[in-house]
Amino acid sequence: DPKLKVFTCNANPALAKEIVDHIGLPMGNAQVVHFSDGEVQIKLNESVRGADVFVIQSTSAPVNEHLMELLVMVDALKRASAKSINVVIPYYGYARQDRKARARDPITAKLVANLIETAGAHRVITMDLHATQIQGFFDIPVDHLLGVPILGKHFAEKELEDVVVVSPDHGGVTRARKLAERLEAPIAIIDKRRPEPNVAEVMNIVGNIEGRTAIIIDDIIDTAGTITLAANALMEAGAKAVYACCTHPVLSGPAIERIENSSIKELIVTNTIPLGPEKQSNKIQALSVAPIIGEAIIRVHEELSVSKLFD
Amino acid sequence: DPKLKVFTCNANPALAKEIVDHIGLPMGNAQVVHFSDGEVQIKLNESVRGADVFVIQSTSAPVNEHLMELLVMVDALKRASAKSINVVIPYYGYARQDRKARARDPITAKLVANLIETAGAHRVITMDLHATQIQGFFDIPVDHLLGVPILGKHFAEKELEDVVVVSPDHGGVTRARKLAERLEAPIAIIDKRRPEPNVAEVMNIVGNIEGRTAIIIDDIIDTAGTITLAANALMEAGAKAVYACCTHPVLSGPAIERIENSSIKELIVTNTIPLGPEKQSNKIQALSVAPIIGEAIIRVHEELSVSKLFD
Ligand SMILES: Nc1ncnc2c1ncn2[C@@H]1O[C@H](COP(=O)(O)O)[C@@H](O)[C@H]1O
Ligand SMILES: Nc1ncnc2c1ncn2[C@@H]1O[C@H](COP(=O)(O)O)[C@@H](O)[C@H]1O
Repeated sequence: DPKLKVFTCNANPALAKEIVDHIGLPMGNAQVVHFSDGEVQIKLNESVRGADVFVIQSTSAPVNEHLMELLVMVDALKRASAKSINVVIPYYGYARQDRKARARDPITAKLVANLIETAGAHRVITMDLHATQIQGFFDIPVDHLLGVPILGKHFAEKELEDVVVVSPDHGGVTRARKLAERLEAPIAIIDKRRPEPNVAEVMNIVGNIEGRTAIIIDDIIDTAGTITLAANALMEAGAKAVYACCTHPVLSGPAIERIENSSIKELIVTNTIPLGPEKQSNKIQALSVAPIIGEAIIRVHEELSVSKLFD
Repeated sequence: DPKLKVFTCNANPALAKEIVDHIGLPMGNAQVVHFSDGEVQIKLNESVRGADVFVIQSTSAPVNEHLMELLVMVDALKRASAKSINVVIPYYGYARQDRKARARDPITAKLVANLIETAGAHRVITMDLHATQIQGFFDIPVDHLLGVPILGKHFAEKELEDVVVVSPDHGGVTRARKLAERLEAPIAIIDKRRPEPNVAEVMNIVGNIEGRTAIIIDDIIDTAGTITLAANALMEAGAKAVYACCTHPVLSGPAIERIENSSIKELIVTNTIPLGPEKQSNKIQALSVAPIIGEAIIRVHEELSVSKLFD
């Protein structure tokens, strides 16, 4: 369909290429570059007039750079008369700043939602938001995709025995249960408690893990502190082996070193965020979200085309 | 007045300090730092409830970082119940992307105005916008300060003889005329023309510069291409000496090298953008805008206080 166009900014061009290949489209012809002083410059080299346009951009590090690229791209598409502007944000940065955890905190996840709408986006496709409440921060439709089917398929094919799926905290239990259902396995939960102020946290494991192969699942792994401590606690409590998985491999600061030195046997992630040269490890394997994002784009575009009949 | 509070982000803390010193206030207690993954984290360490708050932040390089710091700060202040949020942007980045110079260009200067309003700012104080039209991109009041009085005072004190003020292009004539009035000097204009496509530009000087001391004035000096070529053309055409001045020393890429190698005797700038270690040159001197920004803050705060009587 000549009226479907897909563009990418600079956060993850390799994923964007896989997505357009999956759909069977050429990549939209645009350059997202910088002026001498570092300001973002966008050159849209083809017409988008009347087209349903999808822009692929994770707001991963450098987050402010990538967010601004996305906003300027949306502005350019709007002024170039795109019919609809659909932003595809595989990894939604600032999602952890989703509430006032302390007095006078900003709620940057909401600010970012407002900025994206202000720039002119009509619809958002994203994956595994840190808090599903973030969908409500938008006043435009949000399609929320899940990483669990991809991660689940991988572990199902491994045919591990005596699996237990572990949530590293209470917030992640729903996600762990979804993976457990897929693998027909029980779940366990790590219940972190600080017995007294200024005393180290205790990792209390709720559920039976003895002699089992544990698979810890989280949405984001950032500095990998939580997940590596959890893995070690699981091994000490008698697990046979510990695997870990997540959708978004942020992996900042000491993450790689911690993973290398932990009892995690394998970490399975997706490519919502690219694993740059400084994020390589033999323990880490990335699965592609291109097929499910590609399908989502096809589905949304069909919807937009059908609705045209009723316009 | 306890109800006036001034905060700064990270673009130019030295200027912000000078400004609060001028006003006679302590600096607002806040930290603008980063999480491990690079996301902006703001800690407002004092109450701003009911206060008229001013936030000082130039959107200079790294522009996207500095813009986002400002937006997150405004979000935090809004949620912490500041009575009014006044953003002071000595240098307004993205100002040169103020129109569709080519087909399908974004208009990022307008996007940025929208982002600042969306975050929750009530008022803007800025200096020497690249195009005064940018004031109209905002739907909130904009106080627009000029650098000419500061630059003019400096040159007046030098007591140069036979001065001619030179605008490097037709867009800058109004600014040049203001400086010329201050110095009781005539003006000249550089009329760049490209006689044929792919032939080097000709610098045609309109006005009498022979035997005179030329002062070129511009709003922004970025890569310094225009200004150094203009200086050399002025010397070739018989100027006695060439000074240059601008409000915003962007000075990216080859700027310093070009200035060092040019016939510019002295370049006078202001501190709307700090001259980092890579921007040092014996030819460059920076004047402070702290007094005029400080006065503007005092004036706006008085206005806000007076209007309270009528609320
Ligand atoms: N980029 C970030 N890196 C680390 N912590 C963050 C980040 N953004 C927000 N937070 C903090 O993470 C906490 C929320 O995380 P969670 O409890 O997992 O939802 C809050 O205290 C936030 O201040
Ligand atoms: N940061 C920047 N550095 C250099 N050129 C820019 C920048 N932003 C916008 N421009 C271009 O500068 C031109 C406008 O500059 P001017 O003619 O001086 O108003 C337009 O062609 C813009 O595309």
